[in-house]
Amino acid sequence: MTKKKKTEIAELGEFGLIDHLTNSIKIKNKSTLKGVGDDSAVLEYKNKQIVISTDLLLEGIHFDLTYTPLKHLGYKAIAVNLSDIYAMNAHPKQITVSIGLSSKMSLEALDEFYSGIYLACDKYDIDLIGGDTSSSLTGFTISITAIGEGEKDKITYRSGAGVNDIICTSGDFGAAYMGLQLLEREKKVFEGNSQVQPDLASHDYLLEKILKPEPRRDVIELLKEIDVKPTSMIDVSDGISSEVLHICKQSGVGCRLFEDKIPIDATTSMLAEEMGINPMVAALNGGEDYEMLFTIAQSDYDKFIKANSPVKIYAIGHITEKSKGSYLITNAGQEVKLSAQGWKHE
Amino acid sequence: MTKKKKTEIAELGEFGLIDHLTNSIKIKNKSTLKGVGDDSAVLEYKNKQIVISTDLLLEGIHFDLTYTPLKHLGYKAIAVNLSDIYAMNAHPKQITVSIGLSSKMSLEALDEFYSGIYLACDKYDIDLIGGDTSSSLTGFTISITAIGEGEKDKITYRSGAGVNDIICTSGDFGAAYMGLQLLEREKKVFEGNSQVQPDLASHDYLLEKILKPEPRRDVIELLKEIDVKPTSMIDVSDGISSEVLHICKQSGVGCRLFEDKIPIDATTSMLAEEMGINPMVAALNGGEDYEMLFTIAQSDYDKFIKANSPVKIYAIGHITEKSKGSYLITNAGQEVKLSAQGWKHE
Repeated sequence: MTKKKKTEIAELGEFGLIDHLTNSIKIKNKSTLKGVGDDSAVLEYKNKQIVISTDLLLEGIHFDLTYTPLKHLGYKAIAVNLSDIYAMNAHPKQITVSIGLSSKMSLEALDEFYSGIYLACDKYDIDLIGGDTSSSLTGFTISITAIGEGEKDKITYRSGAGVNDIICTSGDFGAAYMGLQLLEREKKVFEGNSQVQPDLASHDYLLEKILKPEPRRDVIELLKEIDVKPTSMIDVSDGISSEVLHICKQSGVGCRLFEDKIPIDATTSMLAEEMGINPMVAALNGGEDYEMLFTIAQSDYDKFIKANSPVKIYAIGHITEKSKGSYLITNAGQEVKLSAQGWKHE
Repeated sequence: MTKKKKTEIAELGEFGLIDHLTNSIKIKNKSTLKGVGDDSAVLEYKNKQIVISTDLLLEGIHFDLTYTPLKHLGYKAIAVNLSDIYAMNAHPKQITVSIGLSSKMSLEALDEFYSGIYLACDKYDIDLIGGDTSSSLTGFTISITAIGEGEKDKITYRSGAGVNDIICTSGDFGAAYMGLQLLEREKKVFEGNSQVQPDLASHDYLLEKILKPEPRRDVIELLKEIDVKPTSMIDVSDGISSEVLHICKQSGVGCRLFEDKIPIDATTSMLAEEMGINPMVAALNGGEDYEMLFTIAQSDYDKFIKANSPVKIYAIGHITEKSKGSYLITNAGQEVKLSAQGWKHE
């Protein structure tokens, strides 16, 4: 085996590094007038509203480089910001990427990270328009801002859910949480005995959900296709429970979710049981699934059925008067009060 | 003396902390449709172009909490981003603020930091519209994105400087750099003997330039008032030398700066000489002055004279053909080649 080349980033200097990382950029969106290379980027949106979202990712808090491939990290850093824009029923168009580089990071490692960023940008037609590059005394630091556009009358807030609206989601839950548990378990085994290879076989789906989530552009496209504007929408980064409570609080309503309606993948359930974790707890309070959670008027429900789209939408409950509170109805018919408990150190 | 109250941030939890930091926000700009509290902020600009700038500030690299008051740090974090927007001949309207909090930071300390942020927002009519709040395993981390608007035909890039244009600046140089040298010197004295009080007297101007710089909105307002659009513009964060070379590179031109025209404050020169630093080197290669550096057509120069504005503008040189290179003409008549040497670890 040949040893991989390692180039010290300091060799390039700041301006050389920025050139190296950005010289292959080709502008994709009409709204991007000027990207990287001036004091600010310049954008122009005609008759659209602009949506902005931002995320800060810190080594040791949001990611662990011992089991996160850098390319996946770059991809995911973009994906989670795009997810916030889609959750407004809008389309992301531009991003800025700022990074603080620890001294142990080589140019080749940084290129891996950026290859993930550019892969996500290509797949979702995003222009990288700016950022900031700095050294960091400690861990790898990533700050992403995403900018998007939406039709004035289509932008969807968290605050519009009405009584009797149906609560819908775009996928299954708890998979990313169980993927993380798996990585943490194998890391501990590896630390105990570095000769042991991690046992990740047959868990591809869970690992993909935690390491390389896809933002749900397809859901936003489906909504347009069938001409449905949700009454409220949010993306699921902290678990269904926390997110549905955000919608209830901001809409001034309550809700009922039904345990038997909440989709959980078979591999999620199996691993959860193997590790002594209740799969429903993983689904409700786990995080990072990045599915869409939205409410629709009952009259719009048929449109989803008729669409016969490959994009699956699950009805998992309904909105109630505020006074009725927010509860999960279990398979045994019990009412369990929903509570927000994000699992991330945030 | 009563001991100041210290509240652990963990007591509030993430959502409590966000509420605490943002509940006093009042929206100031028509273009801000929705600020903090959804997946994204929503903005609307009618017939304007939008400019975006972003900065990442890391403890130990960009600031030293041993001599930087947190309120000043918050103010400066905003100021430097606004400066980038003004440097486009545009007006900042919104910011996002993301922070990674080290465990040693109390709620009262964070409030100090935010009081500086809100002070800058009030002074410059900025809406805080979003961000991200996280814990940090290491130092205090700050990421700011500023969003602004400009008239389509007024936005000024770095790339428009033409031969014979006059190179102008809005203030003196080297003061922030000498302010930093002073703080570093007194920190060393203090570390050697904590009974000694720092000797900062009579250096108010230098300290203000490094700790609490003001972005030059007044320069942008003057340009509008006298109806001058610079042919190129940049803000001076890395020293005149580096910035004028950015303009020359992007405009495909050369330049001549004149040593006797470059404004240096008397207190800058005095401290520089006391510390054995060449004041002109501090002015050319020091950083963080956040003055505007711009080029104008010769025919526009009279307008500045006639304006008789309290905003002083200094002509420090002129643009040449690219083939003539970029040089400083010293008082002795020598030509010294300009080189970019940012003093920051960036």
